Amino acid sequence: MTIDDPILLAEITAAFAAYERALMADDVPAMDALFHDAPTTNRYGVGEVLYGIEEIRAFRKGRGGSPQRKLGKVAITVYGANETGAFATADAEFFRENSDRRGRQTQSWVKFADGWKVVSAHVSLEGNTH
Amino acid sequence: MTIDDPILLAEITAAFAAYERALMADDVPAMDALFHDAPTTNRYGVGEVLYGIEEIRAFRKGRGGSPQRKLGKVAITVYGANETGAFATADAEFFRENSDRRGRQTQSWVKFADGWKVVSAHVSLEGNTH
Repeated sequence: MTIDDPILLAEITAAFAAYERALMADDVPAMDALFHDAPTTNRYGVGEVLYGIEEIRAFRKGRGGSPQRKLGKVAITVYGANETGAFATADAEFFRENSDRRGRQTQSWVKFADGWKVVSAHVSLEGNTH
Repeated sequence: MTIDDPILLAEITAAFAAYERALMADDVPAMDALFHDAPTTNRYGVGEVLYGIEEIRAFRKGRGGSPQRKLGKVAITVYGANETGAFATADAEFFRENSDRRGRQTQSWVKFADGWKVVSAHVSLEGNTH
């Protein structure tokens, strides 16, 4: 299994950055274009669990945008090759304005015929263990 | 891209269940065997961020076991084929003993030559958004 093919790593790094820009601008169509359009695409947010792209779309429409944030450490790894199938994980820390809790965002990406798409995402704030 | 090849789905479902059994038994070697042995394997826990298998091992060794929990909804999807490369996401809800907060666990799995391994995991408790 190839790890971190440089071209794929550049592609997924760009896709990750495009998603962050879309999130900060509350550009819902751009966010939607980067999530895989399927009932199997899931997103666990800080305060919600969403199964399937339709639940994710409904949440975004009603959300009024994410809190503004700055990214901390970002760790991206790509598995596989263009010819056979490629998958990536993006684990990122973030810090929201007016919050001292560290945020964590995990995304799983798959490269489909129409490009890299998130198939699973999980966002949480570190802290309370009870 | 093949989705949910039945043989692969059966394999990953079994691997997911094996990890859950190991976690509940605090069987650290069994948990370790199901995580990819690499510096790129990351785990965000409820109260910690861990980069690389060595940080994950050190955390497990010092933890004294996970709180006991029951699983809720589990959503597993497999992308790819045995011949080319296979990747899976496992999104699961859980409920810890003596807690009314919903837990969420996301795992990304890759099938390597020595079997299915977690390459990224994120565990959090739903709730507080501030």
